[in-house]
Amino acid sequence: GTTSNFVRTAQPSTEMSLETFPSPAGHNAPEQVHIVQGDYNGRGIIISWVTPLNLAGSNVVTYWKAVDGDVKPKKKRGHASTSSYRFYDYTSGFLHHATIKGLEYDTKYIYEVGTDGSVRQFSFTSPPKVGPDVPYTFGIIGDLGQTLASNETLYHYMSNPKGQAVLFPGDLSYADDHPNHDQRKWDSWGRFVEPCAAYQTFIYAAGNHEIDFVPNIGEPHAFKPYIHRYHNAYKASKSISPLWYSIRRASAHIIVLSSYSAYGKYTPQYVWLEQELKKVNREETPWLIVMVHSPWYNSNNYHYMEGESMRAMFESWFVNSKVDLVLSGHVHSYERSERVSNIKYNITNGLSYPVKDPSAPIYITIGDGGNIEGIANSFTDPQPSYSAYREASFGHAVLEIYNRTHAYYTWHRNQDNEPVAADSIMLHNRYFFPVEELESGNTRA
Amino acid sequence: GTTSNFVRTAQPSTEMSLETFPSPAGHNAPEQVHIVQGDYNGRGIIISWVTPLNLAGSNVVTYWKAVDGDVKPKKKRGHASTSSYRFYDYTSGFLHHATIKGLEYDTKYIYEVGTDGSVRQFSFTSPPKVGPDVPYTFGIIGDLGQTLASNETLYHYMSNPKGQAVLFPGDLSYADDHPNHDQRKWDSWGRFVEPCAAYQTFIYAAGNHEIDFVPNIGEPHAFKPYIHRYHNAYKASKSISPLWYSIRRASAHIIVLSSYSAYGKYTPQYVWLEQELKKVNREETPWLIVMVHSPWYNSNNYHYMEGESMRAMFESWFVNSKVDLVLSGHVHSYERSERVSNIKYNITNGLSYPVKDPSAPIYITIGDGGNIEGIANSFTDPQPSYSAYREASFGHAVLEIYNRTHAYYTWHRNQDNEPVAADSIMLHNRYFFPVEELESGNTRA
Repeated sequence: GTTSNFVRTAQPSTEMSLETFPSPAGHNAPEQVHIVQGDYNGRGIIISWVTPLNLAGSNVVTYWKAVDGDVKPKKKRGHASTSSYRFYDYTSGFLHHATIKGLEYDTKYIYEVGTDGSVRQFSFTSPPKVGPDVPYTFGIIGDLGQTLASNETLYHYMSNPKGQAVLFPGDLSYADDHPNHDQRKWDSWGRFVEPCAAYQTFIYAAGNHEIDFVPNIGEPHAFKPYIHRYHNAYKASKSISPLWYSIRRASAHIIVLSSYSAYGKYTPQYVWLEQELKKVNREETPWLIVMVHSPWYNSNNYHYMEGESMRAMFESWFVNSKVDLVLSGHVHSYERSERVSNIKYNITNGLSYPVKDPSAPIYITIGDGGNIEGIANSFTDPQPSYSAYREASFGHAVLEIYNRTHAYYTWHRNQDNEPVAADSIMLHNRYFFPVEELESGNTRA
Repeated sequence: GTTSNFVRTAQPSTEMSLETFPSPAGHNAPEQVHIVQGDYNGRGIIISWVTPLNLAGSNVVTYWKAVDGDVKPKKKRGHASTSSYRFYDYTSGFLHHATIKGLEYDTKYIYEVGTDGSVRQFSFTSPPKVGPDVPYTFGIIGDLGQTLASNETLYHYMSNPKGQAVLFPGDLSYADDHPNHDQRKWDSWGRFVEPCAAYQTFIYAAGNHEIDFVPNIGEPHAFKPYIHRYHNAYKASKSISPLWYSIRRASAHIIVLSSYSAYGKYTPQYVWLEQELKKVNREETPWLIVMVHSPWYNSNNYHYMEGESMRAMFESWFVNSKVDLVLSGHVHSYERSERVSNIKYNITNGLSYPVKDPSAPIYITIGDGGNIEGIANSFTDPQPSYSAYREASFGHAVLEIYNRTHAYYTWHRNQDNEPVAADSIMLHNRYFFPVEELESGNTRA
């Protein structure tokens, strides 16, 4: 495999201060606006926002199909469920989540939140109807945080006109890297990503920085802030927890798992995944993508082998299901694996090497969004056979699904202009076209 | 190792009916009485019972030091916290749990629960003060259930006068093997074990049969019945959940883990175990015992390799901490491992065999209490090197701690009279006397 010897200018990953992202002006102005898919197949959306006060109308969203010229739009209203939470000496604003169903596919909608003088308007485009040859482009961003490098990563991605939704394999705000998990950094993160997250569905997995487990300051409930702030349609996929769920979007079936919930046999997440994999219909959604924060194939010394416990449990399921792609974060650098599997071990046979396997997924580690903890530039040496490309650089990836057989995957380091792909591969769908991929067109830095 | 070829008469493990254990007579009579250690070091006890109604006084326990002759006992009162729960079409009785502190060590206490005409009296002996050479004998019973074989196992153990407390590595009532997890079987189990569990502290681990996860009948909260019915002093060991905790009793430090809760890095159970192992003081409690339901070393085809996921996470900690003994259930037969470890694997070095290791614990699988699911008589062939003794028979074990260096461990199959040990070994403490053990005196059936 390739270990890129790109020498990146030591760019700062210094934290952007709270003041960088002030609350929007206006009395009780809505902020931290973000949207996620609100059902299993893409006709639903959850619009979320935060207001300092819970005045009348604070939980109302008005939305309508974008219309041309002087056609009068038919406006509808959605009502959010509202909650707030306390964390040590912090009290959140009012967290609103409005689920809207019955959208038309592939349609641009305008929506407004806010009351009186502080109405704010955003828009989104609903995904196309689920189908095997439906083209769709996902951005892939992990472990983003809120530093100058994070800003580069986000705006680098936003400059790519093709991106339609973002796959986000965990570690959002890094509030927990601040004293007492300073929850104001969750708020500033919400404001930081709003220019993207209010317009494009983000599909979030929970990472370790979402656990916020601090019993010694009276906060023993894992994931409390994350679960209050980021909703998803987990019930639509028969899950009992927002920490694991799945959605179907265009030609992709996306399964989100939780590295930091129970996953032993018989546990809810285990039972749910066993049933969900049976529901995957590759004739409708050829691209089977899994997101799980802690990587199973990672040749970086950081967090080395942390994924073994979950790999031992589920890797054979992924290979048997011919998963196309597994996206992880956690390690703050970039790596793409070969299609390998390591599922023959039976305690006494010594068969414990990763081996090339056309049915296996490609494992991507994309924890290089640029967070405060800096780059993880300590790769094990030599580069193991399961590692195809690795580089300790901040960046993001893009997955451009063409049809049922081909999807063009690229990774863009922050130092390059967006169109430059430092790593790329034309993916062949494991169900319709399980032919070996050629490492095409990646520029050997 | 030995694979016993004892041919057991096919004894029934037919379920005892509900009518076998009627509620005790008397208006609002307390039932399902059981006790567990109520603090970290043995001066506390939790006395639990169930009453059909919540009449005045239902939650009161009266207790006093057993006195001889005509000395008038000084009676004290404890007040229980009371709850009840619903499960599908079942509503529990009132579940009382009274924590009593400040007991004198090594002292017999009499206690009474119940109001008006239905007072019932029991007794217990508090453990001796924690100390390195304090002799103490534990019974070990797993996956008991409530069949005729379960009855044999329990009374077989109760006929051994030495037993002072019971280590119970999970799977109690098997209510979940009945329609809609018939919760009345939890009640009948409570009444079945009362003749032992009301007099001896049981130290319970949660097994898969405690999960009771049935979302399709509106019961998505894992462990709800178990957590309502079986309390423990988890807060005393700084845990945030009753599913993992530890206690010190006589010369033993007992760590209870949950195979079916999250145990990935950063999760509450992981963080708790990491800190708890640092607190172990072998100078005070030389015998370090861990209970975890799903076995890590199991050569039976049933549940083969199910423990790999948790082993990958924690085995090196156990070896580094020189754990003496790991007790598991889950597989419905009996097995004792050699002292082995398999902690050198690093993905690419192929070092993935269990090897003899004097710092490693002995792993006992004792899921042969006799439950309704019957015996697991399908051992992998040949017997692997890590397996010292295995037999597909119902039974229980006894751990007789002599002092800081020696503890006599025996396993008793139900077909023999209690004094007969089908398997036995004189354990050498890994901290004070890490010398190889000789397989003494076990009768080769």
